[in-house]
Amino acid sequence: MALVNENFLRLPGSYLFAEIAQRVSAYRSAHPDRPVISLGIGDVTRPLAPAVIKALQDATLEMASEKTMRGYAPYYGYDFLIEAIVKNDFHARRIPIDAGEVFVSDGAKSDTGNIGDILGAGNTVAVTDPVYPVYVDTSVIAGRAGTLTDGQWSGIEYLPCTAENGFVPELPKKHADVVYLCYPNNPTGTTLTRKELKKWVDYAVENRVLLLYDAAYEAFITEKDVPHSIFEIEGATKVAIEFRSFSKTAGFTGVRCGYTVIPHELKAYANDGSEVSPNELWKRRQSTKFNGTAYIVQRAAEAVYSSEGKQQIRETIDFYMENAKIIRTGLEKAGMKAFGGVNAPYIWLQTPDGKSSWEYFDYLLNELQIVTTPGSGFGKSGEGFVRLTAFGKREETVEAVERIVRSA
Amino acid sequence: MALVNENFLRLPGSYLFAEIAQRVSAYRSAHPDRPVISLGIGDVTRPLAPAVIKALQDATLEMASEKTMRGYAPYYGYDFLIEAIVKNDFHARRIPIDAGEVFVSDGAKSDTGNIGDILGAGNTVAVTDPVYPVYVDTSVIAGRAGTLTDGQWSGIEYLPCTAENGFVPELPKKHADVVYLCYPNNPTGTTLTRKELKKWVDYAVENRVLLLYDAAYEAFITEKDVPHSIFEIEGATKVAIEFRSFSKTAGFTGVRCGYTVIPHELKAYANDGSEVSPNELWKRRQSTKFNGTAYIVQRAAEAVYSSEGKQQIRETIDFYMENAKIIRTGLEKAGMKAFGGVNAPYIWLQTPDGKSSWEYFDYLLNELQIVTTPGSGFGKSGEGFVRLTAFGKREETVEAVERIVRSA
Repeated sequence: MALVNENFLRLPGSYLFAEIAQRVSAYRSAHPDRPVISLGIGDVTRPLAPAVIKALQDATLEMASEKTMRGYAPYYGYDFLIEAIVKNDFHARRIPIDAGEVFVSDGAKSDTGNIGDILGAGNTVAVTDPVYPVYVDTSVIAGRAGTLTDGQWSGIEYLPCTAENGFVPELPKKHADVVYLCYPNNPTGTTLTRKELKKWVDYAVENRVLLLYDAAYEAFITEKDVPHSIFEIEGATKVAIEFRSFSKTAGFTGVRCGYTVIPHELKAYANDGSEVSPNELWKRRQSTKFNGTAYIVQRAAEAVYSSEGKQQIRETIDFYMENAKIIRTGLEKAGMKAFGGVNAPYIWLQTPDGKSSWEYFDYLLNELQIVTTPGSGFGKSGEGFVRLTAFGKREETVEAVERIVRSA
Repeated sequence: MALVNENFLRLPGSYLFAEIAQRVSAYRSAHPDRPVISLGIGDVTRPLAPAVIKALQDATLEMASEKTMRGYAPYYGYDFLIEAIVKNDFHARRIPIDAGEVFVSDGAKSDTGNIGDILGAGNTVAVTDPVYPVYVDTSVIAGRAGTLTDGQWSGIEYLPCTAENGFVPELPKKHADVVYLCYPNNPTGTTLTRKELKKWVDYAVENRVLLLYDAAYEAFITEKDVPHSIFEIEGATKVAIEFRSFSKTAGFTGVRCGYTVIPHELKAYANDGSEVSPNELWKRRQSTKFNGTAYIVQRAAEAVYSSEGKQQIRETIDFYMENAKIIRTGLEKAGMKAFGGVNAPYIWLQTPDGKSSWEYFDYLLNELQIVTTPGSGFGKSGEGFVRLTAFGKREETVEAVERIVRSA
C-alpha cells in the first residue's frame, strides 16, 4: 500500500499566496468592472533590463547553432556566472567567498525549500515571527514541526518581531539547532545592523547552530550600516548558508535564477557529533535531484553584473524604492503606523481600528480594490498588520495610497 | 547542534555521471591532443528547432516591455502549455487526461527526484535493475533504502532485467509499495509491450501499489505495440504518476522543461488506510517549494507542439534514431551483443571477453577515446554492459562504431 508523507496532512489550508490569489480571483469575477491594484504578492512589474534582454537574445541564437548550442549545464552553475557572482557580490565587498562555495539554481524559493533535504529530521528549528511561510511549511513537510496549536507548531521556536521590540528578534530562549533569518526582512521590510547580526553569528558559533540566511532583498539596502551578506560578519562562514535571488534584484521572478552560498568551512554534525560539510552534501543533493539552470537564463543573470546591466538595474530598484517612499510617507502623513520600506521593498502597515489582518485585507480588497498580504499569514506576531509591496506601477501605487489615506 | 541528514552519509561515492565526467576530464587533461568522442551521458548535440528558437525570441521581447512582461508563472504551468500538452500528448492518443492533472516543471529529473517528498518514509520501493540512479539515490536520501551491501540496498527490491529475460522485469516477489518503471528504458533502451505493461497496472491495482512511470523517452518509440503513456492502459489513472520531459524530445537538456501527470483519481494512503490524493499533495509541494517554470521556457515548450515544431523535432529524432541504427547494426555485424536502440536512443552493449563494465569503460576511453556509461553504474544486473547513446554527431558516431569494430 503506497503511503503518503503524512506531514502534508498536518498543513492547514493552502499556501498563503495561493489563498490570496483565490480571493482576488473571486472578487475580480464578481466585479469585472472594478480594476484591482495589486500591492500584494512581491512580484515585479518593470520589464527586464535591456542588457538582460540582449543576453537572452544572444544566448538564444547560440542555442540555434550546432557549434554553439549547450546541453546540460554544470550542476552547480556555469563558471562565467559563478565568477561574476563571486567578483561582484562578494570580492567587491571584501568577502572571501570562492567559486566552489556558490551554487546557481532556479531561484531562492527552491533553495530555501530544498535545503532541508540535507538536514536531519531531529533538528529544532527557530524562525522569526512573522516569517516567510516557506521556511515553516517546508519544516512541516520534513517532519520537523510537531503539531499545530493556535497557529503555531510545537516543534518550532518563534521569535517575535513586533513594533515594541523594533522588529529585532531576541536570541532563542529554548534550544535551537537551525535558525532561519531573512534580512532585509520579508515581510516587515526591516533590517538588522551589523552589530545585531554579529550577535546571531556569535550565538551560532557558540551553540553549533546553523543559520539559514535569506538575503533575497539585499539589493534594496540604502543605509550604510546594514550588511548585504551575512559573510560580512566575522565567523559567519563557520555557521551560515546564504540564499540570494535575481528575482527582485533584477526582475527575474518569471525568469527563475538564484544562488546559494555554502562555505567550505561551514560544519554541521552527524548524530555522533562528527563534523560533516554541508557544501559536500548540497553538491550531492543538487547533482542527484536537480539538472542545472538553463544556459540562456545564466547568461541573462551574468548580464546583471555588466556595467550597463548594473546601471539599468539600479534605476529599476530606485524606481521601486521611490514607490516604497511614496507608500510609507503617504501612510504616515495620514497618521498610520508604517514600518520598513527604507532598505526593502516592503511596507509593514499596522491595521487601523484594531482590525485583524484578514479583516483589513478584505476591506482593502472589497472597498478600495487594493490587494495586500495579511500579516497574520506570516505568523501570529503578524496579526494586526498587512504587507504592501513597492513593486507596483507608479500611478497605481500613488492611487492606492490616496485611496487608503482618503478612507483613513 | 545542527544535524545533517545522515542518509547522505550512506551514499557511496558521487553521482554516476559526475564520476564519469571526472574520469573524462582527467583523460582530457593528460591527453589534450586526443579528441574524445562522447557517447556517454545522454545529452543532445543538435540545436534547438527553429520554431523553438522563434518562440524564445518572441517571448524574450515580451519580457522587454512593461505591457507584456511576465512575473511569477503559475505554480503548475501556464494554461497555454498545459493545453498543448493535454491536446497533443494525451487527447490525440485518446487518453482522457485533463489540465488539472498536468504539472509543468524544470525537468523530469527534478520531478522524479522530488516526488519522494509527498511519499511516506515507510514505503518499500522496487526498481528495475539496471536503473536510472536518481530513483535509488533519492530513495536513499529520503531514508527508504536501508543499508548498502554488495552494491544493493536492503530496503529496495531489485527486479533484474537481463539478456536472459529479454529485459522484461518480473513482478516483485516481496512486498512493494512504490515501483519505479522507466519505458522506453534508460539505460537498456528496451521497452514493454501493452500486454506487459497491463500486467504491472493490474498488479498495482490489486496491491494498492503506486507506479512511478518515467516516460522521458516516449518520443523515440517507433514500434506500434509500445505504449507512449502508461495511461493508455486501463486502470492506470488509479495507480500511476507519469513523468515526461522535453529534454530528449526537443533537445531541451540545457533549457529545462518537463511535466508530471498525476491523475485526480489516483489514490495513495495514510497509515490508517484512508485515501489521500497525490494530486493535491503535489500541488501543495510545488506551491511551497517551487516557483514555476520560466515564461520564455514555457513558450519554447509550447512551440514543440506547433506544426513546424513537430516536423522539425521529428527530423531531429529521426536523425538520432539513425545514429542508434548505425551503432546497433555496426556492433552486431562485428559479432557483438547489442540491445535497445529501436524505440530508444540508447544501445545496451554487452562487453566483450567478460570484461567488467568499468574495465571496458576505461578501455574505450583510454584506448579508443570513446566515452560510454558503465552498465554497473546502473545496478548489479548492468555489470558486463556499457550504455552508448545515439545523441552524438553523425561523423563521430560512425567513427566511434568503426573504432570499436576494428578493435573487436
